[in-house]
Amino acid sequence: MPDSVKDSPLYSLINPRSIVFFGASNRFSSMGTNQLSSVLDFGFAGKIYPVHPSEKTVLGLKAYRRVLDLAEIPDLAILVLPTNIVSGILQQCGQKGIRQAIIVSGGFKEVNRRGVRLEQELIQTARKYGMRFLGPNCLGIANAHHKLNTTFLPHQGVPGFVGMASQSGSYITQMFDYLSRSGLGFSTAVSVGNEADIDIVECMQYLARCPHTKVICLYIESIRNGRRFLDAARNITPHKPVVAYYVGGSEPGRRASLSHTGALSGPDRLYDGVFKQCGIIRADSIEEMFDFCSVLGRVRPPKGNKVVIQTHSGGPGATAADACGREGLRVPAMPKTIAAKLAPFVPPTGSTGNPVDITFSKDPLEYFSKIPDCLLAGDSYDMLLIYVLTSARLFRRHMADMGIAEDEMKEMANRFVDGICDSIQMQGTTNQKPIIGFSFHARQEYIIKALHKRNIPVLPDPKRAARAAAALWKYAVWRKRL
Amino acid sequence: MPDSVKDSPLYSLINPRSIVFFGASNRFSSMGTNQLSSVLDFGFAGKIYPVHPSEKTVLGLKAYRRVLDLAEIPDLAILVLPTNIVSGILQQCGQKGIRQAIIVSGGFKEVNRRGVRLEQELIQTARKYGMRFLGPNCLGIANAHHKLNTTFLPHQGVPGFVGMASQSGSYITQMFDYLSRSGLGFSTAVSVGNEADIDIVECMQYLARCPHTKVICLYIESIRNGRRFLDAARNITPHKPVVAYYVGGSEPGRRASLSHTGALSGPDRLYDGVFKQCGIIRADSIEEMFDFCSVLGRVRPPKGNKVVIQTHSGGPGATAADACGREGLRVPAMPKTIAAKLAPFVPPTGSTGNPVDITFSKDPLEYFSKIPDCLLAGDSYDMLLIYVLTSARLFRRHMADMGIAEDEMKEMANRFVDGICDSIQMQGTTNQKPIIGFSFHARQEYIIKALHKRNIPVLPDPKRAARAAAALWKYAVWRKRL
Repeated sequence: MPDSVKDSPLYSLINPRSIVFFGASNRFSSMGTNQLSSVLDFGFAGKIYPVHPSEKTVLGLKAYRRVLDLAEIPDLAILVLPTNIVSGILQQCGQKGIRQAIIVSGGFKEVNRRGVRLEQELIQTARKYGMRFLGPNCLGIANAHHKLNTTFLPHQGVPGFVGMASQSGSYITQMFDYLSRSGLGFSTAVSVGNEADIDIVECMQYLARCPHTKVICLYIESIRNGRRFLDAARNITPHKPVVAYYVGGSEPGRRASLSHTGALSGPDRLYDGVFKQCGIIRADSIEEMFDFCSVLGRVRPPKGNKVVIQTHSGGPGATAADACGREGLRVPAMPKTIAAKLAPFVPPTGSTGNPVDITFSKDPLEYFSKIPDCLLAGDSYDMLLIYVLTSARLFRRHMADMGIAEDEMKEMANRFVDGICDSIQMQGTTNQKPIIGFSFHARQEYIIKALHKRNIPVLPDPKRAARAAAALWKYAVWRKRL
Repeated sequence: MPDSVKDSPLYSLINPRSIVFFGASNRFSSMGTNQLSSVLDFGFAGKIYPVHPSEKTVLGLKAYRRVLDLAEIPDLAILVLPTNIVSGILQQCGQKGIRQAIIVSGGFKEVNRRGVRLEQELIQTARKYGMRFLGPNCLGIANAHHKLNTTFLPHQGVPGFVGMASQSGSYITQMFDYLSRSGLGFSTAVSVGNEADIDIVECMQYLARCPHTKVICLYIESIRNGRRFLDAARNITPHKPVVAYYVGGSEPGRRASLSHTGALSGPDRLYDGVFKQCGIIRADSIEEMFDFCSVLGRVRPPKGNKVVIQTHSGGPGATAADACGREGLRVPAMPKTIAAKLAPFVPPTGSTGNPVDITFSKDPLEYFSKIPDCLLAGDSYDMLLIYVLTSARLFRRHMADMGIAEDEMKEMANRFVDGICDSIQMQGTTNQKPIIGFSFHARQEYIIKALHKRNIPVLPDPKRAARAAAALWKYAVWRKRL
């Protein structure tokens, strides 16, 4: 593993200062044009040299006939070309002195035997010139902190802390908006394609050193070299959590992977074993992979698995308790001393048990400050799962009832929400215990965004919160073992 | 079971023409006031008589000192009162001749022994006067088609087809916005509370006859009379699908339920057995319960479990295939005859296998019309799972590239999306096969709403689509057995 991110062989591929781009034109329906558009849209600060056989300009940039005509040696070549001519162009790039390439073109190993042969040619060419390349059959990279997105959809949202290495380009390019809606964002995401040269292990190692990446996630159809993967992951997981989604454990999944990237996947249990041996947290779905990232990237692992649940509403409380029980978390009964402290805040129709149910809540400051304070002080509990029903919208409703003017309401309500979010954040920090929210509110609701901003993850369903809390606990157990 | 919805003993409770309301005031922080506010907000068309000991008006309505003072006998009494006085007021309602009541107040069986005794009193009073009542410890009902919502949060969204009976009021009142965002809505939802009189079985029977309800869902902490439940459900499921979420299978869930509604829940496997014996589809989470409703309420069960998957993107295709495999669905290889028909629409880097992967797609009309036509004709497949990446936003991007004016774009893009949604809907109808979409788009994206409007459910993750498709198949198997 490289000592720092700048020592990684991928550094200038992921953080290039200049790019030569093959396969973009002024025809908007072509893949290459869309990809160059994405690079321009995001406002990449470096030089871009489109190469085109006939056009004088491409998307407003001066175009060049051949890479050999360029006055400088670009850091990175991006190739979105018909399969047949990829090898020749890669060779020209090598001759020019370019040492990093992203080969987007498909039609190689994933397609047929001829493709396997063509892919071998690429590897030989790259070796000859000392080049490293990503792909073929990939979408390249999205480095949000470097304002570089080579995929065909425009980047959305803000730079985040999720580092991803994916054997499917879709899970890079098609997740920008999804992540943004969930209060997340990529730090750097890499679509590895066929991994003819750079593989998912090297990407994982890059992300391990990337200072913007707090959690790594992997979409895996097949691990080609189990030993290498295990060794690398074992070096990373003590310092940075890694979440993986593995597709291919079922027969239809295996067949689909094979046709997608030519990957030969293995039995589900084998992968389960591999992940367990190196402390990688396995997710059951794409959605869950990002749920886990949201929690593992935001809060530190707990000291134990004793969960206390706080709710206004019996149903969500019971659902969360049941889900915690199923996921191997403990939900211990409320000690009498804490119950006594809670009593003033809980009406007779509520419960000072675990879950604490304050039913119809009047005072959000009690809910977000005094009650969590009672629950998290001392050693009775290691984590708090809190139900979020409060919203700026509800405050605005009350304010309207109180006769406050429309134009003042929004700002007042938001300021009030910010205040209670500060309180709950402080409870977590002071007590050094993870707080995880769950809520049926829209992800765009002000309080959800305000909590995310303060590193309190809020999951959209009690079960998803319990699963994520269990993942956090799994990671804690792994780190303790070391 | 009643022969028609009007014969149900719950009919005038759920569809009252007039209501007497106890416990609302002009104090905005009280539960009762919030609940009456909700009734007013929704625009209930019948008469409302607030009863208050001192106020002359309540929320702008003429208030009455005692129910006995009313000039007419209201269809329904709603009581949001301190526990102690509930029984006395219920008695007055009985004396007045009122035959239906919703008792919102808590503090009964769910709290302590004294509460058990008080609850017995309610039952005796009701019997004495031939009254039926919902609760105590409930939030009442939301009948979207009758514009009646007695819960404390305002109704949001439009009337829908999901009928719900819930042992938690939260899962009625706090789901309005959630359902609305998912393109769903309640037909009628009932919070059953402690079920001292009316129980979840009677509610289920009402919903079975409710013409607006296409699918029934149940949130269950405990079934009190297993035999009655089984018999009732067995009569319903052949005609209308029923989905249930059971909390209480784990020890923490059991304890939480007990403190919530005083329910004694049973082991998980017992409930699994009960549900299987009567054809109820069990959901693993609240989110999943509504996912299943979205699918079971929108499409008819398939003839078999052979799924074909259509995608632009290898990763989502492989993920969906793997999830189908895990959920007991078959994803059979593509017959050569169909592959040949598909060939003109699939580039050499794509796949004419199953999943069909057309990769970077240029022509949405092929994707939403010609390809599904190839896949669904004949007997090779029973269901289509289709990945939705197309969006009005993407069309607008292309239109901008083509120089179309901003103000024309939105309408043009939406019209285009409507057109392709019409095409795919027709494919489903013509071939009489369910089509289920999956997409990482926001639920508010125009194409998602347009598909929902045409009864094509779109789930937010491939696994959730596969789970819902498997639930649909389970329901098909149940109906075949009969």
